Amino acid sequence: MNGADLLCQTLLANDIDVCFSNPGTSEMHFVAALDRMPEIRCILGLSETVVTAAADGYARMAEKPAATLLHLGPGLANGLANLHNARRAFSPVVNVVGDHTTAHLPHDAPLTSDIEGLARPMSQWVHRTSRADDVGRDAARAIGAAMSWPRQVATLILPADAAWSETAEAPQKAPLASPLAPDAARIAAAAQALRNGRSTTLLLSGMALRAGALETASRIAQKTGARLMAQQSNARTERGAGRVSIARVPYNVDEALATLADTEQVILVGAKAPAAFFAYPGKPSSMLPPACAVQTLAGQDTDLAAALAELADAVGATGLAPVLAPERRPPLPTGALTPDAIFQALTATLPENSIVCDETISSGRNFFAQTAGAPSHDYLQITGGAIGWGLGNAVGAAVACPDRKVVVLQADGSGMYINQALWTQAREGLDVVTVIFANRRYAILHGEFKSVGAGAPGRNASRMLNLDQPAIDWTGLARSMGVEAARAETAEAFSRLLAAAMTRKGPFLIEALI
Amino acid sequence: MNGADLLCQTLLANDIDVCFSNPGTSEMHFVAALDRMPEIRCILGLSETVVTAAADGYARMAEKPAATLLHLGPGLANGLANLHNARRAFSPVVNVVGDHTTAHLPHDAPLTSDIEGLARPMSQWVHRTSRADDVGRDAARAIGAAMSWPRQVATLILPADAAWSETAEAPQKAPLASPLAPDAARIAAAAQALRNGRSTTLLLSGMALRAGALETASRIAQKTGARLMAQQSNARTERGAGRVSIARVPYNVDEALATLADTEQVILVGAKAPAAFFAYPGKPSSMLPPACAVQTLAGQDTDLAAALAELADAVGATGLAPVLAPERRPPLPTGALTPDAIFQALTATLPENSIVCDETISSGRNFFAQTAGAPSHDYLQITGGAIGWGLGNAVGAAVACPDRKVVVLQADGSGMYINQALWTQAREGLDVVTVIFANRRYAILHGEFKSVGAGAPGRNASRMLNLDQPAIDWTGLARSMGVEAARAETAEAFSRLLAAAMTRKGPFLIEALI
Repeated sequence: MNGADLLCQTLLANDIDVCFSNPGTSEMHFVAALDRMPEIRCILGLSETVVTAAADGYARMAEKPAATLLHLGPGLANGLANLHNARRAFSPVVNVVGDHTTAHLPHDAPLTSDIEGLARPMSQWVHRTSRADDVGRDAARAIGAAMSWPRQVATLILPADAAWSETAEAPQKAPLASPLAPDAARIAAAAQALRNGRSTTLLLSGMALRAGALETASRIAQKTGARLMAQQSNARTERGAGRVSIARVPYNVDEALATLADTEQVILVGAKAPAAFFAYPGKPSSMLPPACAVQTLAGQDTDLAAALAELADAVGATGLAPVLAPERRPPLPTGALTPDAIFQALTATLPENSIVCDETISSGRNFFAQTAGAPSHDYLQITGGAIGWGLGNAVGAAVACPDRKVVVLQADGSGMYINQALWTQAREGLDVVTVIFANRRYAILHGEFKSVGAGAPGRNASRMLNLDQPAIDWTGLARSMGVEAARAETAEAFSRLLAAAMTRKGPFLIEALI
Repeated sequence: MNGADLLCQTLLANDIDVCFSNPGTSEMHFVAALDRMPEIRCILGLSETVVTAAADGYARMAEKPAATLLHLGPGLANGLANLHNARRAFSPVVNVVGDHTTAHLPHDAPLTSDIEGLARPMSQWVHRTSRADDVGRDAARAIGAAMSWPRQVATLILPADAAWSETAEAPQKAPLASPLAPDAARIAAAAQALRNGRSTTLLLSGMALRAGALETASRIAQKTGARLMAQQSNARTERGAGRVSIARVPYNVDEALATLADTEQVILVGAKAPAAFFAYPGKPSSMLPPACAVQTLAGQDTDLAAALAELADAVGATGLAPVLAPERRPPLPTGALTPDAIFQALTATLPENSIVCDETISSGRNFFAQTAGAPSHDYLQITGGAIGWGLGNAVGAAVACPDRKVVVLQADGSGMYINQALWTQAREGLDVVTVIFANRRYAILHGEFKSVGAGAPGRNASRMLNLDQPAIDWTGLARSMGVEAARAETAEAFSRLLAAAMTRKGPFLIEALI
């Protein structure tokens, strides 16, 4: 057995049985070891941004890490943007990054780079294993780090000689991590605040947005008059009919400020104090009124469901029934194909227990309002703002949940960053419906350009903000990678395609010209 | 005038008039400033790996930097792999990376990340400008750093408030850098070595591979009996008919060792001592015989043409004529479509003064031998091994040299990393012929897997090393982004397509099923 075999055994011993990968020569012994270990499912991404986006989506739905296999510093670099999204989602990910042998590094061969330096900005845990005998221990530590609370991105650097050298070590199990128990003083402080008569917002994120925790939060809200609100962007929200409906802090600064203008105190439950996505001249960074008090019930390192339950006890909200959203399926839309029409069609056709990955960017602002009556589903958002996430995240979600329909709402500009994920959807036969919001521009930037006060875009701005000339044919793009596809230009055509896609298995892409 | 205007003026004052970009909200004032400065040509890449590959190709051909415009840490991260190739090519690049305002950073908004940490592994110069008044000075410093010898990747971080705040500062010119003059002692030592009767290899890279320097080297070789050889991978080699023909150190370790087995001393001229691309069990990292002496005539910080000229004087090689390659156009190939048939067709049809970007990986090993009789051309290689370079590098080369035909030889696996570059080729109407070497596998890795001794690939290995199931339709992929394309399955069909593509302007892609 070599170090690579020990690594595979350690992954399996810790219930990691999916490896999203794009290997190279320095990882070939790891590839050979994976080949000897068919219990691990290896899934190829045609660039590493697919690999890490898939690992993020997988972790959100499986609640455990996948391994990634990345080729040296440049392979890791290509995956960093979606590791950024993963760390912002508190997704557990175990990256295995190959490197040259220790003896080869001083030769500064072409692919040599500072892998630790590249890894650290997007990994909370980074370690270079030095020899085959250490691989099991180090891999277990990586898994332990990924599964600690809050969950983390862990990057293990595996020199080629640590992979290929023989070892007699046994695989190790990572210690099982539990989240922190709620802090009694914080529970008491929050309960006291909820009785002080001020206008209060309970701001939720993380595990506080699962169905059970939301029901508890709903009871607290009914009892105390506090408002429930979710952070602007969240890794996973359980929502739809039969669940507690919760609004999010708006993306737009002026809307966020208006939404929170009357709030006198905020209690954070896995959320951060709301800040603007970007800074603007003359506008504040904090979305809270200057006098607003902020206290933390619990962070993402804590059992948020338990913290809410203890708070419900403390405020005497245990006997109440939560307010649950009714199912309200609208008719299929007609007329112009707008984002709202897409959301209406989605609400009309979404199968129960689906997963929706939302990278609509500017087109998705009304998604929550328009889909409140949809059947229950998991809603995954791009958490770090690193665009080029949706198509790949859907790969991971679909691998984690093969019996659930995955719907990706994908802005065209962002989607082009990660179009390669369509190939993996096809290769793995994943049950993913992709809706491309084809406005043929970086629409969000047109709004931002306008707000700069520079007037109408001239040639340079137009050529940086528009995706026309030539327009991208998303149906041809999808078919070139083996995904069936069709284009819709009206709400009727879109509805027909979407309804059909919902009743069949396998990947399908609809290019919605909006 | 704001900081962004000052930045644009500083770029122009230093003769930087191309900006490869993918902007976001935090760079919107820079976009607006570029819009007021039509002298700067802004070229959009649909992911940042296109942007930085293009900047690398531009720098190699224009011999000056383009600016890049990258959106915060994740935008930079997406471009790092090709910045790795750029730094290995000694390509001057000036990255402008937007960031949040200084006041916004403590709020840890979703896109916040450690930009300096991300930049450093692939940039020799990194600086964060702090206010609008400093933008001109800092941009001039960045340009100066990029244009110093050896040329570098410089990354300037531009917080949004430094871009949008007013300033009355004037643009600054970066000092003009010259390479170091040759070192007299090294010239003397090299001259002495060339007279000591040992079997000597002059190993060249960088500016020593331009036509004039190669002619000087050829004279030295004739006079002294030394062998000329180029480093395995080089940024730009001037070769073909009428130029000095030079072989490269082979990629394959056994071939490289055999090639250099008789060498008793090596004199480095802009090259590094040859090392294996990867380390292998039981094989050496150095490709030189253990007893081989190594000395350096000059590094890439030095005027290599002058160093060779002084060496030629010192050894009395001035009166000789260099050995130049004759033009030998073969007939168009027939029969099976193999890499050799492609190179034969290329040699038969390549226009004089073309530019060839080679990312063939495993398919290209015979390129040099097969194309020795082609007319003069510039030959650009992937220098850092970070795959996903060719299609984007061709964008930059074509922008730098609009009157020259650019031919990209692109492996299919690597090409998928950067397929988005086809859209930029179409949008800009670039005169680029792309040849996809479609073997539908990571062929190089099949060889490496075999050498691991793991036998025939099983399911996991096959699914990580093969690109079939589904096969990628490169013609449909190209057309979906506006590039005309056709597929060839025989040498005859390929030759017809290539000959036609050579006589027309604009982007065209040939998928060669090999």
